Amino acid sequence: MKRIFSGMQPTGQLHLGNYFGALKNWVQLQDSYECFYGIVDLHALTTAYDSSDTVADAVIAVAADWLSAGLDPEKSVLFIQSHVQEHAELHLILSMITPIPWLERVPTYKEKQQELAGKDLSTYGFLGYPVLQTADIILYKAEVVPVGEDQVPHIELAREVTRRFNNYYGNIFPEPQTLLSSSPKLRGTDGRKMSKSYGNSIFMAEDPAELDRKVRKMMTDPRRKRRSDPGGPEDCPVFDLHKVFTEPEKREEVAHLCRTAGWGCLDCKQVLLDRMHPVMDPMKRRRDELLMHPDRILAVLHQGADRARRVARQTMEQVRAAIGLLKA
Amino acid sequence: MKRIFSGMQPTGQLHLGNYFGALKNWVQLQDSYECFYGIVDLHALTTAYDSSDTVADAVIAVAADWLSAGLDPEKSVLFIQSHVQEHAELHLILSMITPIPWLERVPTYKEKQQELAGKDLSTYGFLGYPVLQTADIILYKAEVVPVGEDQVPHIELAREVTRRFNNYYGNIFPEPQTLLSSSPKLRGTDGRKMSKSYGNSIFMAEDPAELDRKVRKMMTDPRRKRRSDPGGPEDCPVFDLHKVFTEPEKREEVAHLCRTAGWGCLDCKQVLLDRMHPVMDPMKRRRDELLMHPDRILAVLHQGADRARRVARQTMEQVRAAIGLLKA
Repeated sequence: MKRIFSGMQPTGQLHLGNYFGALKNWVQLQDSYECFYGIVDLHALTTAYDSSDTVADAVIAVAADWLSAGLDPEKSVLFIQSHVQEHAELHLILSMITPIPWLERVPTYKEKQQELAGKDLSTYGFLGYPVLQTADIILYKAEVVPVGEDQVPHIELAREVTRRFNNYYGNIFPEPQTLLSSSPKLRGTDGRKMSKSYGNSIFMAEDPAELDRKVRKMMTDPRRKRRSDPGGPEDCPVFDLHKVFTEPEKREEVAHLCRTAGWGCLDCKQVLLDRMHPVMDPMKRRRDELLMHPDRILAVLHQGADRARRVARQTMEQVRAAIGLLKA
Repeated sequence: MKRIFSGMQPTGQLHLGNYFGALKNWVQLQDSYECFYGIVDLHALTTAYDSSDTVADAVIAVAADWLSAGLDPEKSVLFIQSHVQEHAELHLILSMITPIPWLERVPTYKEKQQELAGKDLSTYGFLGYPVLQTADIILYKAEVVPVGEDQVPHIELAREVTRRFNNYYGNIFPEPQTLLSSSPKLRGTDGRKMSKSYGNSIFMAEDPAELDRKVRKMMTDPRRKRRSDPGGPEDCPVFDLHKVFTEPEKREEVAHLCRTAGWGCLDCKQVLLDRMHPVMDPMKRRRDELLMHPDRILAVLHQGADRARRVARQTMEQVRAAIGLLKA
């Protein structure tokens, strides 16, 4: 089986955008790859260096969502990045061979600085984000990295840095390949991109009553002001959810009834809720159970770190020998 | 006793400039401070990333010189930087709070790039040199850093980064203080700055016959073309050596005999050699003995790394807790 690495920042409770954009895919990949999945808390510090006191809780929240969604510690290595010191060590070594212009060229570098304009992101660590990401991946000699579209330039950079390392020190690392995961467009309850910072998220582990409330209040196609106005499913954030929850034939019917004003939005939403609950309520229940014993979640992550560390140590022994550093 | 950290790059065999500029001072400091001295092989990679295969031999050479000069593993912690992973870990964490403009402002950044113009030093790691240096120092909570003039801006940066860390995460680190060591001017055998790259060095562990040869061939004040020409001791690289090897009264006499053409340069050099041999020959003998058992040198460095690691681990536990990372 080929090896995968992918990481997720500890943003706290995950929403449906996270689930359908990454996590659901990760769960499926477990059967065809050897998967290393890291909660990348050190990456979080590149932007959250001044609010790091929330990181620990956010890590546990993400881990609970991972496990409730079906990431399985029997199949995959689930761990916290900062628990494996070798990430930092390889990051430092890769820093020596990574030209700054390569880093400045990564599109997200300037984009994120503009997005978070109120925050000082002129830091050395923020510039080095893709170096750390490269270390994350190749530390496990991962051959495949499942990512969304926006991360493709980062993986391209990781490939360049890997090539450079192999050129200087010998062929230690496979060049990681991008496995593009299709991220369905999921708008939030107010019609904007689903994002925690907008307060418009539907969480993976939404309480059933809260889920009803959120969906029922959810914005629909604004052209449908009255029950008799025909709607456009493509312009309706509720229909985004039908696309991921509702089976194709039923979805066609839903779209037809919308376009022809054959039913009201609440009818449409009820059909959706009837499909969301059977998927989401069990996840919510598993999550609640897990969170009654955070020590068990931590134990899973510690065991994962042990497994990750075994691989990471082997890699770093090879790296140090290839570079010519003295054995510790 | 206050704690000191200082590091030296593994440049290979050390010359008298290294000895009188740093090492001799380090030996003396051992009695009044708790000293951590690191051979900073990771720093060497900032410029030698493409020729790293010489690093291991250079580390052993430096360690042999250290021990032969009187650095004492019973008194001080002598170790190789890359053997203590926590340097890389703290470097990564400090990277998050270090503004790039602070790094670009360090004078040696541009100077060194110009000096080594043929080499690509536009790398991320070269820019981060002072971040790694800061990590080296504060990892051991060193209060004092003995450095030469050229390193003062680096320590000033280390103080700024330390203050920033303490502001964000609580008062974990003392702000390191500079202990300026006076570096006597020592010119090489050709009258230029003593430097390995110029091939004009007199090594600490010079073979006695070779020492005679080098000093006898050494350039003197160019105005003294003939025995009868009066010389200027201040313009004579041989007199640089008298300043560090010859006792003051004798040195006065030497200067007088030079200014008055009272003797020839070979006479002057013989007086010098009579003082160099008793200092340098025993160092050479100790070094030869040490190098017959490189495994013993390595054992000293491994024991040093164990001691350094114990302190480094404690620091990093505090750092992780202060930042809010989950305990590994």
